[in-house]
Amino acid sequence: MTYKKPLCLVIGAGGVGVLTAYSLFKADKSRVALVVRSDYEKCLSTGYNIQSCDYGEIKNWKPDLIYRSVEDAAKSGEFFDYIIVTTKNIPDGPSPVYATIKPVIKSNIKNWPSLNSSCSIVLIQNGIDIEHEVIDLLHREGSAKNKFNLLSGVQMIGSIKVGQCEIKHQSKDSVLIGPFDPNDQEAVKKSHEFVKMYDTPENFVTFDHNVRFSRWKKLMYNATINTMTAIVHLDYSRCLEFGKNTTEAGIIRPAMNEIMAIAKSEGYEIDPETATILIEADRDLVYKPSMLVDVEKTQLMELEVIIGNPLKVAKKNNVATPSLKMLYYLLVIIQGRIKEKQGTLIFDENTARVVQ
Amino acid sequence: MTYKKPLCLVIGAGGVGVLTAYSLFKADKSRVALVVRSDYEKCLSTGYNIQSCDYGEIKNWKPDLIYRSVEDAAKSGEFFDYIIVTTKNIPDGPSPVYATIKPVIKSNIKNWPSLNSSCSIVLIQNGIDIEHEVIDLLHREGSAKNKFNLLSGVQMIGSIKVGQCEIKHQSKDSVLIGPFDPNDQEAVKKSHEFVKMYDTPENFVTFDHNVRFSRWKKLMYNATINTMTAIVHLDYSRCLEFGKNTTEAGIIRPAMNEIMAIAKSEGYEIDPETATILIEADRDLVYKPSMLVDVEKTQLMELEVIIGNPLKVAKKNNVATPSLKMLYYLLVIIQGRIKEKQGTLIFDENTARVVQ
Repeated sequence: MTYKKPLCLVIGAGGVGVLTAYSLFKADKSRVALVVRSDYEKCLSTGYNIQSCDYGEIKNWKPDLIYRSVEDAAKSGEFFDYIIVTTKNIPDGPSPVYATIKPVIKSNIKNWPSLNSSCSIVLIQNGIDIEHEVIDLLHREGSAKNKFNLLSGVQMIGSIKVGQCEIKHQSKDSVLIGPFDPNDQEAVKKSHEFVKMYDTPENFVTFDHNVRFSRWKKLMYNATINTMTAIVHLDYSRCLEFGKNTTEAGIIRPAMNEIMAIAKSEGYEIDPETATILIEADRDLVYKPSMLVDVEKTQLMELEVIIGNPLKVAKKNNVATPSLKMLYYLLVIIQGRIKEKQGTLIFDENTARVVQ
Repeated sequence: MTYKKPLCLVIGAGGVGVLTAYSLFKADKSRVALVVRSDYEKCLSTGYNIQSCDYGEIKNWKPDLIYRSVEDAAKSGEFFDYIIVTTKNIPDGPSPVYATIKPVIKSNIKNWPSLNSSCSIVLIQNGIDIEHEVIDLLHREGSAKNKFNLLSGVQMIGSIKVGQCEIKHQSKDSVLIGPFDPNDQEAVKKSHEFVKMYDTPENFVTFDHNVRFSRWKKLMYNATINTMTAIVHLDYSRCLEFGKNTTEAGIIRPAMNEIMAIAKSEGYEIDPETATILIEADRDLVYKPSMLVDVEKTQLMELEVIIGNPLKVAKKNNVATPSLKMLYYLLVIIQGRIKEKQGTLIFDENTARVVQ
């Protein structure tokens, strides 16, 4: 019996997704399928050009399999051992993660190879409590004989799509992978497997037994500095400079303290030094965090997973969060502003009401 | 001895200032001088056209005296019995009120008619604690023989300049006038005098023994709804609709409660019903409050007098204000953004520092 490499489906062909797919491809321990929407034709004909700080200049790279959509992947007849989601996570947008992956979940169930088989869903995404909509989906679609593992990934990477099939990768790919549920032994095993499968001499990937803690630590930045820049529509260093005596002490520190308090209510003690490290790290860079970029591009923000969900935990555990709440409520309005500009929300000026 | 009408100098020839000057003119108990900057030539040649909900269609109206600047008014040799300031009050901008009026304060002192004379400075402006910079100015410039009275005015009026010397006045002029210091008997007397001088059959002007209380009540709107719309860059009803379950309960009510608490710490009990009345009043109007208009026009906001000064009172009196603070700190950054766009603040992207 010949060893058959596992098949990975990477969903999300932006800067991050393509790099993730390329790392898997480079490690050469799996076959890599990529869902490529808008760049499909170009990808099929000439492949990707990647300028990577980790891998150098890559010309005309093509993944093993290319699909135009998740639906097409589902129709392919393939069973995907790993479904890796690197899209933005926007439950209040038109494509929540559960809806995005549903076609391949259903096709995988149909194409299930054997009772010993399993499928691992790897969410390499921002935020917290992102697994629940997937768990709900699996409850609706799956059955006892379909063993799905839920893997949680936190990635630090600077990689952007600068043109059709043109990727610019600017800061080292660093990934933490572990089970959403630390007690799920199969998910632990598959996480280790994924780490091996992803590992290249150039990138940095490691098993993390408690990714939830890592997610809280990442929220120290995303729920505070990222949200603030999106609200005031200015890069981070301008925020610090224009509010010389107030931005750090009055916005960032209180918000970070609240994230620490929420994490602590779950038993996670974030080192208070983290706040200072994060505040100082980009002080001298004119850096635009992801939510600010979204606002500038009239794209929906990852609002719920980055700040809405942490506030739900705070409410459940009775943690006071006046700063985060105000940031969140202002962003809820701004998200509506983006939806109206995108045309997915219609406001009637005559009645002063949302009509759709 | 013939009765000589008092001479009023109105500073600020926007929609509000011109209407204020016209009301004084119409009442015909004073002579009215107006400082007209950009529209000076036009005003001199053809005067103002005013479309007024109170006074009807007014063509080619000219005040008794017209000055191109406060400096020109100062050079005129006139003594102004009333100096009426209707400009925006922006202490952190290039023209704080004390600097604006300084030339006529100095010329008035030079032209002081007699020991029995007095000059009344009437600040018809938003915010709170706006008198202190004027008091400081008078301490520096005045002497015991120069009796200045400080009058406080709160105006509700919808009046805008729609073109050169073209004014559109859309909602009834309603003014409260009283002394900044209720114990200053001369200021009380002059306030009554001003009310008589301003009163026309069409407008609504009344003596208010405690304008500070009225200022707090006006801040119930300005420090909360006005600030919020400026931050998210959306009219009031969109704010309500886009944050259906959060805008009122999570932003406006908490902020209004904090204004009530600060006012209470000074002994002013604002009727809690005020909150509901203000929230409901414009719910069905696609209305853009003044600070939102400022942001849209890249004009400085009346940030300090509307929310900065209330927070100083809160700090002094130990009132908790987490919501107002967050709104304020975000607006401080946005004010910086406006200053940079105006070119009065220079940010060097290489050093990530404000250089001027």
